[in-house]
Amino acid sequence: MKTAKTVASLKTVASLAGVSIATVSRVLNGDPVVKDETRLAVQRAIKTSGYHPNRVAQRLRSTNRSKKLIGLLIPDIQNPFYVDVIRGIEEYAYANGSAVVIGNFSQDPKREKLYIDILRSESVDGFIVAPSHGKDQDVEELINDGHAVVCIDRGLSNLNVDVVKSDNEKGAFNAVAHLIKLGHKRIAHITGDPAIPTTQERIAGYIAAHKHYGIRVDQKIIKGKESNFISGVEITKQLLALPDRPTAIFTANNLLTLGALETILQQELKIPEEIAIVGFDDVYWATSLNPPLTAVRQHGFEIGQRAIELLYQRIQQPDRLPANVIVKTELMIRRSCGFK
Amino acid sequence: MKTAKTVASLKTVASLAGVSIATVSRVLNGDPVVKDETRLAVQRAIKTSGYHPNRVAQRLRSTNRSKKLIGLLIPDIQNPFYVDVIRGIEEYAYANGSAVVIGNFSQDPKREKLYIDILRSESVDGFIVAPSHGKDQDVEELINDGHAVVCIDRGLSNLNVDVVKSDNEKGAFNAVAHLIKLGHKRIAHITGDPAIPTTQERIAGYIAAHKHYGIRVDQKIIKGKESNFISGVEITKQLLALPDRPTAIFTANNLLTLGALETILQQELKIPEEIAIVGFDDVYWATSLNPPLTAVRQHGFEIGQRAIELLYQRIQQPDRLPANVIVKTELMIRRSCGFK
Repeated sequence: MKTAKTVASLKTVASLAGVSIATVSRVLNGDPVVKDETRLAVQRAIKTSGYHPNRVAQRLRSTNRSKKLIGLLIPDIQNPFYVDVIRGIEEYAYANGSAVVIGNFSQDPKREKLYIDILRSESVDGFIVAPSHGKDQDVEELINDGHAVVCIDRGLSNLNVDVVKSDNEKGAFNAVAHLIKLGHKRIAHITGDPAIPTTQERIAGYIAAHKHYGIRVDQKIIKGKESNFISGVEITKQLLALPDRPTAIFTANNLLTLGALETILQQELKIPEEIAIVGFDDVYWATSLNPPLTAVRQHGFEIGQRAIELLYQRIQQPDRLPANVIVKTELMIRRSCGFK
Repeated sequence: MKTAKTVASLKTVASLAGVSIATVSRVLNGDPVVKDETRLAVQRAIKTSGYHPNRVAQRLRSTNRSKKLIGLLIPDIQNPFYVDVIRGIEEYAYANGSAVVIGNFSQDPKREKLYIDILRSESVDGFIVAPSHGKDQDVEELINDGHAVVCIDRGLSNLNVDVVKSDNEKGAFNAVAHLIKLGHKRIAHITGDPAIPTTQERIAGYIAAHKHYGIRVDQKIIKGKESNFISGVEITKQLLALPDRPTAIFTANNLLTLGALETILQQELKIPEEIAIVGFDDVYWATSLNPPLTAVRQHGFEIGQRAIELLYQRIQQPDRLPANVIVKTELMIRRSCGFK
């Protein structure tokens, strides 16, 4: 039989103290607007009833154990790359009795700030964040306030911080080199949002491959606006309408790839015969495409795992030097660029 | 210039009170293990420093305003249907100054319980949950304890609760009817996890369509294990190896569809000429497939919006009768089943 101790709820406490549940909650949250006598009545009721405030949070937060509550800030939950990252983080967290709460800020710096404020006030033990841009003041403030923070996918320009990300430049280099080796000389690049550091790194890899193989770079066929599906559709239309149409497209992320594929299909062009395509991000639907997509695999799951490992280390040793972990990419050669 | 009031941090409070940040946090969380004199010292330091504990959470939680903190429990963040649901919920929440924290429990009832416990101790204002199964005791307990809860995708068998879900039976009926009208008589059904109510409803629609058109149901080609990619691959292999192979496949969700597509491609069968396919869930990559996929569109975004509307109503009127909102599906006819 359950004892009163284990079943006591906020309701029990409220009725014992003769106050509302909201008032009990205020006392539990240390809200200074509560009158001292009310606070005392509630604290007495808590003792009498055997109610355990924030039992789970306390257990999770005990500093000398591995159990933590981790706040995760994700720029775009529609992007399966981040879903892999989330899974990597959750897997590790769950194996250590920890838990992860996720805030998705949809690439919007205002929402990002809102979620940072919320998770901060929920006193999570640490944060894993993909900053909305390189000069992210809200993330900087978090670090300056002494919170444990690890960045994924991109770092901060003004602050030395733990970062885990893919080798974007090398990944892009390998994708473009693959196309060049198959004989392509006119390769378009659909980039992500130009304000994001990863976009710049992937463009750098694209250019480096051209230079390495002595092929002229045409800035007119390096185009980008946002990192989403619509942008992929629009830019592919523009590229395919050019008088000197490219023979191959290198897309900077998986949503851009889908936009490009839909447009190519609608114009009834054959892949790879009439247009070859290679995409950054090898995601779960890539092998179900016809033809299967050649893609740069980012190890999202591993990136998530490295990030949470670093976060645990940061919580234990707040003063250790920041680490910069670069995770290798892998070119998955399938049929969308053809074969030699 | 910023005043001391606005920049006061936990650190400031801790150093003023001469205690650790962990102790300040315990006081803020109303932890009864803290000695009274320590608590007083911390409360004095909070007043002196101008630190605002849980400022955001307080603002969000003020009962007479629309701003809330919503906890969202998602069974599988890899499934883009849930990503649409999340986006619908977030859009509405954000427009109302509210925020959503997400716990992804990966179809694991133990993890589901962990996340319920955490969000409960973080005192969110309400929960939106896709219960892991029909007899979900943890969700039932949440409701019995007086929390505001709305279920998505599936209800609870023992409790009358607010539910928002798709018209699964009608959606499956329409998909199968479409195949029958195109002349198919031997239609396989790859089902999701048989323990989940939606699976049963989709099977019911599949059978109803057969009965309606006077076609015999062969239980041997209704097969299901889990609602994931691997299950889609395995069952498609079994179906394609049958001596009297089906001429069409109806898959019960988008991950099963991808598994089926990969297998069909590997066996170099032509869609729709050699095998037709229609999938439940019309997701963002469906139009980028070759051929584009005929699919039952669930309005995930709208499901999310209805769910959070109901949750707001439930918070305001805890005693109103539970609502059961069934959102219509739509058959998106593309090329994967061919045309008449």
